[in-house]
Amino acid sequence: MQYFTDTEKYIDLQEVNTAIETAFADHGRGVVQMPPKMYITLPDGDFRSMPAYLPSLSLAGVKIVNVHPNNPAHGLLTVMALTVILDIATGIPVAILNATKLTDMRTGAAGAVAAKYLASKKEIVLGLIGTGRQAEAQYQAISQELDIYEIKCWSRNSLHAEKFAQAVTGHDSRSVPLEKACDCDVLVTTTPSRTPIVRSEWVQDGTHINAIGADAPGKQELDPLLLMRGQVFVDDMSQAVHSGEVNVPISRGIFHTEDIAGTLGEVVIGMKQRRSPDQITIFDSTGLAIQDLAIAAIAMRNGRAIDLPFP
Amino acid sequence: MQYFTDTEKYIDLQEVNTAIETAFADHGRGVVQMPPKMYITLPDGDFRSMPAYLPSLSLAGVKIVNVHPNNPAHGLLTVMALTVILDIATGIPVAILNATKLTDMRTGAAGAVAAKYLASKKEIVLGLIGTGRQAEAQYQAISQELDIYEIKCWSRNSLHAEKFAQAVTGHDSRSVPLEKACDCDVLVTTTPSRTPIVRSEWVQDGTHINAIGADAPGKQELDPLLLMRGQVFVDDMSQAVHSGEVNVPISRGIFHTEDIAGTLGEVVIGMKQRRSPDQITIFDSTGLAIQDLAIAAIAMRNGRAIDLPFP
Repeated sequence: MQYFTDTEKYIDLQEVNTAIETAFADHGRGVVQMPPKMYITLPDGDFRSMPAYLPSLSLAGVKIVNVHPNNPAHGLLTVMALTVILDIATGIPVAILNATKLTDMRTGAAGAVAAKYLASKKEIVLGLIGTGRQAEAQYQAISQELDIYEIKCWSRNSLHAEKFAQAVTGHDSRSVPLEKACDCDVLVTTTPSRTPIVRSEWVQDGTHINAIGADAPGKQELDPLLLMRGQVFVDDMSQAVHSGEVNVPISRGIFHTEDIAGTLGEVVIGMKQRRSPDQITIFDSTGLAIQDLAIAAIAMRNGRAIDLPFP
Repeated sequence: MQYFTDTEKYIDLQEVNTAIETAFADHGRGVVQMPPKMYITLPDGDFRSMPAYLPSLSLAGVKIVNVHPNNPAHGLLTVMALTVILDIATGIPVAILNATKLTDMRTGAAGAVAAKYLASKKEIVLGLIGTGRQAEAQYQAISQELDIYEIKCWSRNSLHAEKFAQAVTGHDSRSVPLEKACDCDVLVTTTPSRTPIVRSEWVQDGTHINAIGADAPGKQELDPLLLMRGQVFVDDMSQAVHSGEVNVPISRGIFHTEDIAGTLGEVVIGMKQRRSPDQITIFDSTGLAIQDLAIAAIAMRNGRAIDLPFP
């Protein structure tokens, strides 16, 4: 059994995007096994267990990931993760990966795949609501697929937004008011909000939105009017209904599962697409265990490992 | 983060029984979090993800365990397991345990707790149907709680049964025909059978049965008449209905969830008990994630560990 500790090194972002796209295609074809993630509530946060089997990569395993919002006060990241990989022929555990940064990257890659297929343009203004680790991951991954010529970012903490804008090089990037950040071609929301912060009237026709922040019951970032106005694609139907951007509007009866246009996997395999250039499209990401397997495969190929005795 | 490799050493069986009994009491009082285990089907077996949170021990984590029946042909155990423990305050992974032998032991301990509370006598003849690793674990654990003065064992492979009987010291033990093994005070079934092998007419009134083998849909070891004749206690209602001894009779409509007398946790806290000395009692064990946490706590206290970098 091997323990991969510095998993984010030696990883090529384009390789990740391609692997994640393939995983979504498998999901669209219905050839993966992936029950909805299971939540356990702890006093100051929660953790999720995410098992899956991806036959195309002959890979099976479980990602275990926590969300503890007060962690930064203790010098720890809010989200940390481990992935355990099993040999599919015998079930023996073959690898354990520090999957904290891999989680950021595979979520960024899903956003990149969504933007690649659903954005109405190839040269874009990127709007970022929230400027934390996931905003960075989305920006990095999307820039592999589309030409970003301008970045407009906003954070509840304007200092964070300024810092983010300054750190981005090679693009025109600046911190702007919330409303201005929504005026773009591809909008990415990565906040932990529990009330809508992006109003429908701020978003122009034809915009593609990656709604990333909502990943647990009660979370939402977008005005429900936007969902009704746009075409909503989810990563996984049952996970999205439970914990995605659509979970609150569905639980309140103002949006319905029948209103969901399809899954990103169906988009990747050509079964579904944006209706017109003027359509608003929304990718509702909750994060799939098959994304964790796909990126684990890359990390295991390229990374360095510590050998551990097992059995 | 620590990796505990030789977890079965330095563990006291009585300490395990006590910890497992406490975990069942917590389950009976409804103060644990434990969604039903999730199954992923692989080409030659399956694996299960078992997350839980046991507030009384401030312990949270996930056990990952496979079942690959052809493994012995490749020199590997059929069942192998890892447990990942998270710090409940921050969610950071603090320990990984080789849980293969711990799984045997915690299942044996559940059988011992059931026999302690449900057997009609304290001095018993122990009948064993199946003489593999789990039969050994049940025998070891039960012998901490009850006086075993005779062991009668049976295996489909009579050589295995002979070997088992010879290996047991300090008791009158022998390999007997199937029907004879069922004539006892405490009967333990640990086979992977998919058709009933223990007939109702072979079992005398007042017998307690630990039905351990059935742990997946389609598995069963007991004549359904025995379930109707006896008082059936399960470890967890939803897991038992899905994959315990009762799963096949329930799916065929010849046994009903309303016929289940209660859970072992309810027995431990005194809410439920055997009706009379003549009653047949049955403990239907599927294996609970809280058992894995309870035994992990002991292993982490006593075991040796390898330090691993995380994050």
